[in-house]
Amino acid sequence: MPRDTDVQSRRPEQSFRLTRVGVTDLVKPVQVNRPTGEVTLVPTIDVFVDLPAELKGSHLSRNVEALSEAVLQNGAEPVRSLEDLAARVARKLLERHPYASTSQVDARADYFLERETYNGRRSLERYKLIARAVASRGPPVSVKKLIGVEVVGISACPCAMEGVREMLIADHPGEERLLGSIPVMSHNQRNVSRLMLEVPEDAEVEANDLIDLVERELSAPTKELLKREDEARLVLDAHKNPKFVEDIVRDILRSVLKRYGHLGDDTKVIVSSQSEESIHKHNAYAERVTTLGELKA
Amino acid sequence: MPRDTDVQSRRPEQSFRLTRVGVTDLVKPVQVNRPTGEVTLVPTIDVFVDLPAELKGSHLSRNVEALSEAVLQNGAEPVRSLEDLAARVARKLLERHPYASTSQVDARADYFLERETYNGRRSLERYKLIARAVASRGPPVSVKKLIGVEVVGISACPCAMEGVREMLIADHPGEERLLGSIPVMSHNQRNVSRLMLEVPEDAEVEANDLIDLVERELSAPTKELLKREDEARLVLDAHKNPKFVEDIVRDILRSVLKRYGHLGDDTKVIVSSQSEESIHKHNAYAERVTTLGELKA
Amino acid sequence: MPRDTDVQSRRPEQSFRLTRVGVTDLVKPVQVNRPTGEVTLVPTIDVFVDLPAELKGSHLSRNVEALSEAVLQNGAEPVRSLEDLAARVARKLLERHPYASTSQVDARADYFLERETYNGRRSLERYKLIARAVASRGPPVSVKKLIGVEVVGISACPCAMEGVREMLIADHPGEERLLGSIPVMSHNQRNVSRLMLEVPEDAEVEANDLIDLVERELSAPTKELLKREDEARLVLDAHKNPKFVEDIVRDILRSVLKRYGHLGDDTKVIVSSQSEESIHKHNAYAERVTTLGELKA
Amino acid sequence: MPRDTDVQSRRPEQSFRLTRVGVTDLVKPVQVNRPTGEVTLVPTIDVFVDLPAELKGSHLSRNVEALSEAVLQNGAEPVRSLEDLAARVARKLLERHPYASTSQVDARADYFLERETYNGRRSLERYKLIARAVASRGPPVSVKKLIGVEVVGISACPCAMEGVREMLIADHPGEERLLGSIPVMSHNQRNVSRLMLEVPEDAEVEANDLIDLVERELSAPTKELLKREDEARLVLDAHKNPKFVEDIVRDILRSVLKRYGHLGDDTKVIVSSQSEESIHKHNAYAERVTTLGELKA
Repeated sequence: MPRDTDVQSRRPEQSFRLTRVGVTDLVKPVQVNRPTGEVTLVPTIDVFVDLPAELKGSHLSRNVEALSEAVLQNGAEPVRSLEDLAARVARKLLERHPYASTSQVDARADYFLERETYNGRRSLERYKLIARAVASRGPPVSVKKLIGVEVVGISACPCAMEGVREMLIADHPGEERLLGSIPVMSHNQRNVSRLMLEVPEDAEVEANDLIDLVERELSAPTKELLKREDEARLVLDAHKNPKFVEDIVRDILRSVLKRYGHLGDDTKVIVSSQSEESIHKHNAYAERVTTLGELKA
Repeated sequence: MPRDTDVQSRRPEQSFRLTRVGVTDLVKPVQVNRPTGEVTLVPTIDVFVDLPAELKGSHLSRNVEALSEAVLQNGAEPVRSLEDLAARVARKLLERHPYASTSQVDARADYFLERETYNGRRSLERYKLIARAVASRGPPVSVKKLIGVEVVGISACPCAMEGVREMLIADHPGEERLLGSIPVMSHNQRNVSRLMLEVPEDAEVEANDLIDLVERELSAPTKELLKREDEARLVLDAHKNPKFVEDIVRDILRSVLKRYGHLGDDTKVIVSSQSEESIHKHNAYAERVTTLGELKA
Repeated sequence: MPRDTDVQSRRPEQSFRLTRVGVTDLVKPVQVNRPTGEVTLVPTIDVFVDLPAELKGSHLSRNVEALSEAVLQNGAEPVRSLEDLAARVARKLLERHPYASTSQVDARADYFLERETYNGRRSLERYKLIARAVASRGPPVSVKKLIGVEVVGISACPCAMEGVREMLIADHPGEERLLGSIPVMSHNQRNVSRLMLEVPEDAEVEANDLIDLVERELSAPTKELLKREDEARLVLDAHKNPKFVEDIVRDILRSVLKRYGHLGDDTKVIVSSQSEESIHKHNAYAERVTTLGELKA
Repeated sequence: MPRDTDVQSRRPEQSFRLTRVGVTDLVKPVQVNRPTGEVTLVPTIDVFVDLPAELKGSHLSRNVEALSEAVLQNGAEPVRSLEDLAARVARKLLERHPYASTSQVDARADYFLERETYNGRRSLERYKLIARAVASRGPPVSVKKLIGVEVVGISACPCAMEGVREMLIADHPGEERLLGSIPVMSHNQRNVSRLMLEVPEDAEVEANDLIDLVERELSAPTKELLKREDEARLVLDAHKNPKFVEDIVRDILRSVLKRYGHLGDDTKVIVSSQSEESIHKHNAYAERVTTLGELKA
C-alpha cells in the first residue's frame, strides 16, 4: 500500500487523528556490533507514526525505506544494539513523515550467548532481545528507548517443597533432622522472565548485563547441553533456591535498583515472570510496572 | 502453586508491591445467555490481583476457585456475556484476596453468528470476543469493564486501484470514460479489525452490536460459504468500497460516536485495523486509542 | 473460491492428478452426544478430496456445504464423537465430488472432563481430541477413521533423580539408607502425550477411554485446582513414578495392547510423548508408529 | 535428560522398539556458505534416532553434541546448505548412538534473498528453507536428504474474475469487447507454496533454484518495498496471471519435471500451495505427493 500520491493526501471530512499507523511484522537480518563480536540478528519489527486528522493516509512505503536505510547505514557506522537500531529508525521516520509528531519502533529478536556448564562445557543459550524507541518531534527531536530482555530458566516452587517435606517427615518418623535440612522435591518448570528499562536515548544500558541480571535471579538457568553430573547439579541448585514468580520479580527489581539506581528517577521499569507450571495446564504470572523513583521511595 | 499457608504469608525484607500476580491461559467452557440463545463459549482467561509489599506470595489457587465459582453460578443467574463473567470474577477475586486493592480479569473467546449470503444461504461466521474487568476495592468496590470484538473481513486498497486505473487507461486509449467510472482491480486481503469500549459495570453495550458496527465498516465481510455468483458479488462490493486501514479505523470511530456518544465522555475507545497485505509479507496497521470525550472535541 | 462452473471444469494440458485439494482451518461449533452428556465442541477442520488430472479445479464450496450438512444433521441423529463427524463428512464429500476417488477429513478440538483431586475437589481438565477419516469410493465406499487424544500431564526424570540421590548421599555420609529409599528431587515438567488408533468405521473405540489410558501412564496428571496438601501429594506421586518419554510411550503401547488387542492386526497405532524439559529450552520426544500386529509379534 | 549411565541402559521387560527418540525445537545460529555469500541461518532443529527394545533410554545429550559438533566443523569445511547441515548431523548421530539403526534430522529456517522491483529498487525478501536428512546404518551408512523451500506470494482467483467480468458486462451493455479482454478484479491474497525434493545425499539441488522455480509459478511475488507505480504494476501482473492453488501446484510440478527430470525416478516430490483466501476466514489448499517416476508416466 504505497501512499506517495493523491489518494493519501485527500482531506477526509469529519476525520480523526490516528495514534499509530504503520506496518507490522517486518522481518529483516541486521548486522549488529555486540560486545561479544559482530552478530546477525533477525528481528521482527513494527514501525508506526501518528497521522493528523487532515490526512487520509500515511505513506507506508516510507516506513520500509526508513528501516532499510537504517540497516544499510551499518557499513559506515555499525548499529550496536537492537535499541540503537530502533532509535535510528524512529528518527528517520520523523524525517520521512513531515506530518507526524511522533514515531514508534518495536523490535524483538532471538539472541545467543555462550555459557559454561559446571564442568566447563560450552553451551550456547538462546535469549530474546526486546527494543522500543519512541521519537517526539519537539523541536528538538527527542527519543526514549526501551531496552528489554527475556530469559528462559527454571523455577522451583518453595511452597510445594515445604508441603512435600512435611509429608516425608510424617512418613519417616525419627528422620526429621535430615529431612528438615536438605532440599526436597518440588514442582519445577520452565520460567520466562522479562526485564525492560525505558531510558533516554543516550543512557548506557547493555542488554547483555540485563540478561545476566535476570538469569541470576531465577531458581537456576536452563542449559542446552548437560551431561549426567551437570544435570543432577543443576536440579540440586534449582531446589536449593526455590522461588515463586513473585520472588523472581522482586529479586530482579532489587538488583535493578542496585545496578541502575543512578539512572533518572523517571526511568520506567517493567519486570514480569511467568512459570509454565508443571502441575497445571495454566501458568503462574507476576509483574511490576514502575519507575526507579517509585522503587526508591 | 497453592499458597494458602505459611510460605506465602512470610514477610519479605526490602520488598516491593507487585502490580499483577495471578494465573494466565486458563481455558474453561462457560454457558452464556446471548441474545441469540444460550451458547457455550470456551474462553482463555487470565486473572490477577495486586500484592502488597508485606506479603511474600499470592494464593493462586483462589484465583482458580473464583473463576470456577463464577462459572458455576450460571445455574441460578446465568452469565449474559464474556464481560459479565469477567466482572463477576473480578469481584470474587477481591473477596478471596483480602490483601488486594485491585483485581483484573482478561478473557477472549471465539464466537459465532449466523449471517446470510446474497442469495439467502446461511453462513456461520466466526468472530472473537474480548473482555476485561478491573475491580477497585474502594469502598465501595467499583468495576470497569471493557467490551471488545474482533472481526475478520476484506480490505481492498484504494491507492493501488487508482494506480491500476491509470495504467489501464494508458493501455486502452479512448476507453477513459468506462475505465474511469467502474471499479477496477486492486490488492485485497484479510483484514482483522478490533473495537473495544471501556465502560462502567452497569453500562449496557451489546457485543453483537459492536460486531455489526465493525463488520459494516470493512470493504466487505468474509463469508464461509459462497457459491459462484455470491463470490463475484462480494468481490465487486469490496472493490466498490476500497479502504485503507486508516479509513476503517476512522469509519469505526465515526460510527461509535454516533451509536455510543451518549455514554460518558471518559469512555475509553480503542480501535485498530490490520490488513494482511496480499502484496507484502508484512501487514498494514492503524490504531486510535482515545475517549468519547476526545472524539467529540 | 467457489468452483461450480466453467473455469474449474476446463481441461488442462499436460496435467497431473492432485493428492489433496480442499479447505483448511474451518472452525465451527458442533453439538456432540458424549458419554458424559451433550457438549459443544469447536473443532478446527480440514477437508480434502483428490482431483483427477482432467479437471482444472475442485469445487471448494462443496466442501463447506458437506461439513455444514453433517453438522446440521445432528438434530435427527446426533454426532457421537469427533471421529463420527469426520466420517460423516468424508462420506458426504464423495457424494458431492463425483470425480473424487478419496476424501479426507481432519479435525481437532479442545475437550473437557471433570476430574477429582485427592481430597475430592472437582477440577475441570482440558484435553485435545484428534480425528481423521479417509473414505475410498470403492464401490462400496469404505471409511477408515483415526481416533486420537492428547493429554497434558507431568513427567519427572528418573535419570536426574538418581544423579541427585548420589550427590545427596555423598553430601550426607551415614544417611544412605534413608536417602537410598525415598524419592528425591528431579526435574519435572509439562508433558504432552498423544495416542492415535486407526480403525475401520464401525470399530468401537471411545476417546474418553483413550484419555484415561494415556493419563494413567504419565508420571502424574496435571490439575487445574490444587490446594496446598493436594499439590504436595501430586508432586510426591509424580516423583514416585519418574519416567522418560521413552517409558511413557512404551507404557502406553503396553496398555493399548492389553485393552485393544482384540482389534484387527492392521490397526494403526501412533503414540508420542513430548516433555517440555524444565532444565533445557528444547524438548525431549519419543514416538512409535506401528500396528497392533507388529506390537503382538 | 542426559542419559549416559545406568538408568538408560537398564533392560525393560516386555518392551518395544521406538521409531524416533530425540530432542525437538533446538534453535542455533549456523554460518552457511550460500551461493550469495556467507549467511547466518538460525534454524529450528529436531534430531532423532530409533531405539531398540532392549534399551530403556536414548542418550539425548549426544544429540545436542552431534549438532554442536556439526556446527563447529564449519571453520574447516563450511556447511553449504541447511540440508548439508542436516546430513552431517544425521551421520554423526549414528556414530554417537551405536545402538541406533536410523537417524533423522529436521531443520527449518528463515532465509533472505535480494530481489528487484520493476523500477530497479532493491527489496529483501523472506523465504523459508526446509531440510530433512535420514541416515540408515547399512553398512555402508546411506543418507537421503530432503531439500525444501517455502515461498509467500500472491494468488488471484481465476473463477471470481470470470464471475466479476460477467457482472460488469451485464451492467455495461455495449462494452463487452473491452470488458471481455482486460483483466478485471478478483479476490487475491497471500499464498504460501512449498516444494520439497527428496534425493540421495550427493545429488546437487540448489535451494535458491527451487525458490526461483516456485516464485515464478505464483500469480505474482510479494515485495517488501513497493512505490506507487510498482504496486499498481504488481497488482496488474497478478491479475493477468490468475491461478487456483491447483494451478500453482501443477505448474510447479511441470517445472520440476523440466528442470529436475534427470534425477532418479524414485526422487520424492512434494508440492503444496495454500491461499489465505481474502473472502473467507479459512484457506484453500492443494497438494501432490509423488515421485519423478510417477510424474513422467
